[in-house]
Amino acid sequence: MELNKPIRPAKITRDMTVDQLVDSLSGCAFGAGRIYEAVDIYREMINDPDCTKFLGLAGAMVPAGMRHIVSDMIRDKEIDILVSTGANLVHDIIESMGLHHYKGTDAIDDIKLKQDAVNRIYDVFLPEHHFTDFEEKLQSIFKEIPEKLSITQLLSHIGARLDDDASILKSAYDMNVPVYCPAIQDSIIGLQAWLYKQTNQLNVDVFEDMRGLIDRCFDAKRAGVMIIGGGVPKNFILQSMLVTPRSFDYAIALTMDRPETGGLSGATLDEARSWGKIGEKARSVTVYSDATITLPIIVAAAKSGRIK
Amino acid sequence: MELNKPIRPAKITRDMTVDQLVDSLSGCAFGAGRIYEAVDIYREMINDPDCTKFLGLAGAMVPAGMRHIVSDMIRDKEIDILVSTGANLVHDIIESMGLHHYKGTDAIDDIKLKQDAVNRIYDVFLPEHHFTDFEEKLQSIFKEIPEKLSITQLLSHIGARLDDDASILKSAYDMNVPVYCPAIQDSIIGLQAWLYKQTNQLNVDVFEDMRGLIDRCFDAKRAGVMIIGGGVPKNFILQSMLVTPRSFDYAIALTMDRPETGGLSGATLDEARSWGKIGEKARSVTVYSDATITLPIIVAAAKSGRIK
Amino acid sequence: MELNKPIRPAKITRDMTVDQLVDSLSGCAFGAGRIYEAVDIYREMINDPDCTKFLGLAGAMVPAGMRHIVSDMIRDKEIDILVSTGANLVHDIIESMGLHHYKGTDAIDDIKLKQDAVNRIYDVFLPEHHFTDFEEKLQSIFKEIPEKLSITQLLSHIGARLDDDASILKSAYDMNVPVYCPAIQDSIIGLQAWLYKQTNQLNVDVFEDMRGLIDRCFDAKRAGVMIIGGGVPKNFILQSMLVTPRSFDYAIALTMDRPETGGLSGATLDEARSWGKIGEKARSVTVYSDATITLPIIVAAAKSGRIK
Amino acid sequence: MELNKPIRPAKITRDMTVDQLVDSLSGCAFGAGRIYEAVDIYREMINDPDCTKFLGLAGAMVPAGMRHIVSDMIRDKEIDILVSTGANLVHDIIESMGLHHYKGTDAIDDIKLKQDAVNRIYDVFLPEHHFTDFEEKLQSIFKEIPEKLSITQLLSHIGARLDDDASILKSAYDMNVPVYCPAIQDSIIGLQAWLYKQTNQLNVDVFEDMRGLIDRCFDAKRAGVMIIGGGVPKNFILQSMLVTPRSFDYAIALTMDRPETGGLSGATLDEARSWGKIGEKARSVTVYSDATITLPIIVAAAKSGRIK
Repeated sequence: MELNKPIRPAKITRDMTVDQLVDSLSGCAFGAGRIYEAVDIYREMINDPDCTKFLGLAGAMVPAGMRHIVSDMIRDKEIDILVSTGANLVHDIIESMGLHHYKGTDAIDDIKLKQDAVNRIYDVFLPEHHFTDFEEKLQSIFKEIPEKLSITQLLSHIGARLDDDASILKSAYDMNVPVYCPAIQDSIIGLQAWLYKQTNQLNVDVFEDMRGLIDRCFDAKRAGVMIIGGGVPKNFILQSMLVTPRSFDYAIALTMDRPETGGLSGATLDEARSWGKIGEKARSVTVYSDATITLPIIVAAAKSGRIK
Repeated sequence: MELNKPIRPAKITRDMTVDQLVDSLSGCAFGAGRIYEAVDIYREMINDPDCTKFLGLAGAMVPAGMRHIVSDMIRDKEIDILVSTGANLVHDIIESMGLHHYKGTDAIDDIKLKQDAVNRIYDVFLPEHHFTDFEEKLQSIFKEIPEKLSITQLLSHIGARLDDDASILKSAYDMNVPVYCPAIQDSIIGLQAWLYKQTNQLNVDVFEDMRGLIDRCFDAKRAGVMIIGGGVPKNFILQSMLVTPRSFDYAIALTMDRPETGGLSGATLDEARSWGKIGEKARSVTVYSDATITLPIIVAAAKSGRIK
Repeated sequence: MELNKPIRPAKITRDMTVDQLVDSLSGCAFGAGRIYEAVDIYREMINDPDCTKFLGLAGAMVPAGMRHIVSDMIRDKEIDILVSTGANLVHDIIESMGLHHYKGTDAIDDIKLKQDAVNRIYDVFLPEHHFTDFEEKLQSIFKEIPEKLSITQLLSHIGARLDDDASILKSAYDMNVPVYCPAIQDSIIGLQAWLYKQTNQLNVDVFEDMRGLIDRCFDAKRAGVMIIGGGVPKNFILQSMLVTPRSFDYAIALTMDRPETGGLSGATLDEARSWGKIGEKARSVTVYSDATITLPIIVAAAKSGRIK
Repeated sequence: MELNKPIRPAKITRDMTVDQLVDSLSGCAFGAGRIYEAVDIYREMINDPDCTKFLGLAGAMVPAGMRHIVSDMIRDKEIDILVSTGANLVHDIIESMGLHHYKGTDAIDDIKLKQDAVNRIYDVFLPEHHFTDFEEKLQSIFKEIPEKLSITQLLSHIGARLDDDASILKSAYDMNVPVYCPAIQDSIIGLQAWLYKQTNQLNVDVFEDMRGLIDRCFDAKRAGVMIIGGGVPKNFILQSMLVTPRSFDYAIALTMDRPETGGLSGATLDEARSWGKIGEKARSVTVYSDATITLPIIVAAAKSGRIK
């Protein structure tokens, strides 16, 4: 066995840029080596004009403060197709209405919070009454949309009606990036739709969106994906490629989920190769670390190398 | 502070029953104490005639061999409402057709597997050609069903057409247990629907199911939930209670997901109290351990105490 | 690729024994398959008369209530050599003095606990004043022992002076099982030694124990190890085999630590094969699950198959 | 309940410094909020002239390429006292001899590696023959040192004999920073001592070092600790404070270990407050993320704010 890539220890300097820090980790191993690899793949992917770029967005990334990063990725054309959980979109809409999430703590009496009408998302607090404003907003939007449409179209209608350029849905609308949200009923948008349907007609077909997404997979010259967390977004992106003769050429996963329990969220990207979702020769890496730390690093470091 | 519950070390005896083992852990702490607590809550919940019982089923539990346990839980009336990922239902259908999953290994070259047309799910192998049979089955079922129906109705139609009493979908059909699968398009059932819709009419409304589920939440005298893994099933069950004046009285979560990354999958059950999804006085416990180990233990131990 | 071991779903029956439950998991995958494998290996190992059996004991297993299980393993000759953290031995001594740990909760104000003089170990509470009794006990023991001895000899002296057959140290003394504790100063035994040495002579050589342990490795016809948690016990056992021409023939690890961060605690048993610590043809398995759940299961199930 | 700290989403700019990135995360939650907090505490701690600064170093940080960062922290006076696992020191000595670790992969046949005489540490490869050179080096050093000494003194002798300013041990020697390694026999240094002692006298008392360390704890006006990983270094630092009337004023933990299994490695810093190891009013934060990613960020960001 030939050993020809010695570990080169990282070196920290005062006022170094994120790009320089990541470069300094290029000779390291474990997570340090993987974050370098992730930046390198991401840079290649966003600079590849023939690459259709997917983002899978799970976890409570918006409440954690990752909203501008994602909307900037959309506006900077680093995302062509977004697949999200419903929750991230709900919280995006809330913020776009000028309503805030608040820094809280996880070391708190949740029954006390309930009595104070404050909802907790780990160490983020959200006043319950925000959902009253949310209801008013959603119900007014539902009134303006066609009776029959797809999930993507519904989200596009919502995005068009938000007045905040930092919004993910608004940015996606502006940049013509389709937003897929397979489990939309599994969110407070869904609860609003349930409410609306008690007295109104609304028909959103669950399978309608698939054609558009799979067509994009068929048509892609090359394809790349960044997967934040697991869940539906991860699986939905990967399975859409499954039915095509193609496969992903670039794949980055940012997660803390582990493979050993066998769920798809923690499944390795190599496992996806056995299915043909990711290509034999694809570049891929999983960074096992909190995505609210690694996503900002990757986006910041890759920006420096971005070919304008 | 009064300290009045001394740790009583567990004691192992030859040929002890699962029930006796769990009893022996009743004075222990950490996971040992929690598995006892989970059994105790589960036993109370399934013996409570006024309790509506939910199961949230995420993770690849069917490929791992947990299928009979879940279908027996349904037939034994331990589940009134099932919320599942699409994947568990896909693999249930495959097994009900007499097709097998196989024991494999995670230490394998996935590109080799791809070339051999074997799909991997952690240490489970699945021949790719099973999906050809699956396609034939699903397409023939789609032809027989109404053009317009809900996800639950679609799954009920499938369940009715399976010839295997150990099947989850068949058992649910037989026992009149509704199966919710909010992200059904995020599964190979979804891919088959996409295929079918290329030449046929099929309209499955994404929000149609919510009324029935929420009505069950409204009507429940008491409510209990066992949550296996996280994902959509966990959130969908909890949010359905959110819009009612009620909340869950019993809650058990079996997961390896951790709270610190802030996602809903790893969120503590206490966090759910701040939202009012779980009640102030509810009994709840999370067992942080592989659910393919803890689910069999809990079901086995609780069976011994089951009031017939 | 030949696929010849179909997944056989587990089946739960009323009043089944732990042994029957584990047998029922023999055809399953993920953790369920691994716990069966662990029992199968453990059974072979304890029934192999030529096998020298090691136990690595890390984590707060004694405060959690696993003390009788370990002392019974010693008395049942399932352990020939014990390597432990200091903490487990400290808490064993405390319990052997008739002092208790108490069931508490991790959802508590730790500053309040401090003010109440209660120490917390996750969800276990320990009155601070127990350490006053502990001090008295240890100081009286130190006065009776030779000035110069090894760590193993020191622990043997302590074990001889405990009056509790359920004690790990007492059982080890009774059964002539050496107890290694490489990081003994990293425990409250160490703090007591520091106190004692302020006015007395005591010389415990840090390297003195190695010879005896390595000799046992050299002399073993076959060798097996059960590793609970990671840390020093895991590494110390494995490295002792490293300098011999031999390697472990059986290895079971019970842990929640993950490989991806690169530490030895989470390192796979396969990694240990690259070093020659575990043999090429050795049987090994890691069960990724809470050890306070999996240890009782394995010991209970294996007991049923024990050849007396 | 007053909610007055709205989440301020992070904003990424081209060529931003690490310091600016971390500042941009100051209004975020989850890991992003915690990494900002860690930098803020670390900056305060290293700029506090009355603070005695401890580093606990566990995990395979040296093989991963974190060696220069740690030795620079020592030379930049960010560490007054180092407590390490033996493994990190072994690999530091190897690198200081001009021998390399190599980038490898965790997806490899370990039996093949064994046959090629290559040892694996997750995705790092190490030629077995490096240990031959290591043996020669250590044996020659042992010959030059006193027969009777403490672990710290032994490590100081080794550091003095290394010819590499990037070495942790050499830097500690140069800067008069004591290095504690309670479990030194649990390392290849220990194996070399065992070998040496077969034909030579060497007496290293296991408890000898405690006095010096505890005296430093007693004498500290203020005390701060950064804990990388868990294990012996974490516990040894915290317990040394336990016997004093003082407690840590600053504490930062970088780990992936989780609290729920009850081990000390995953124990929260709040738990340490119940023991009085960390003070009631101390600033503390745990960042749950790969330390090979978070350590470089924290050191880089804090450097920018360093008062020279």
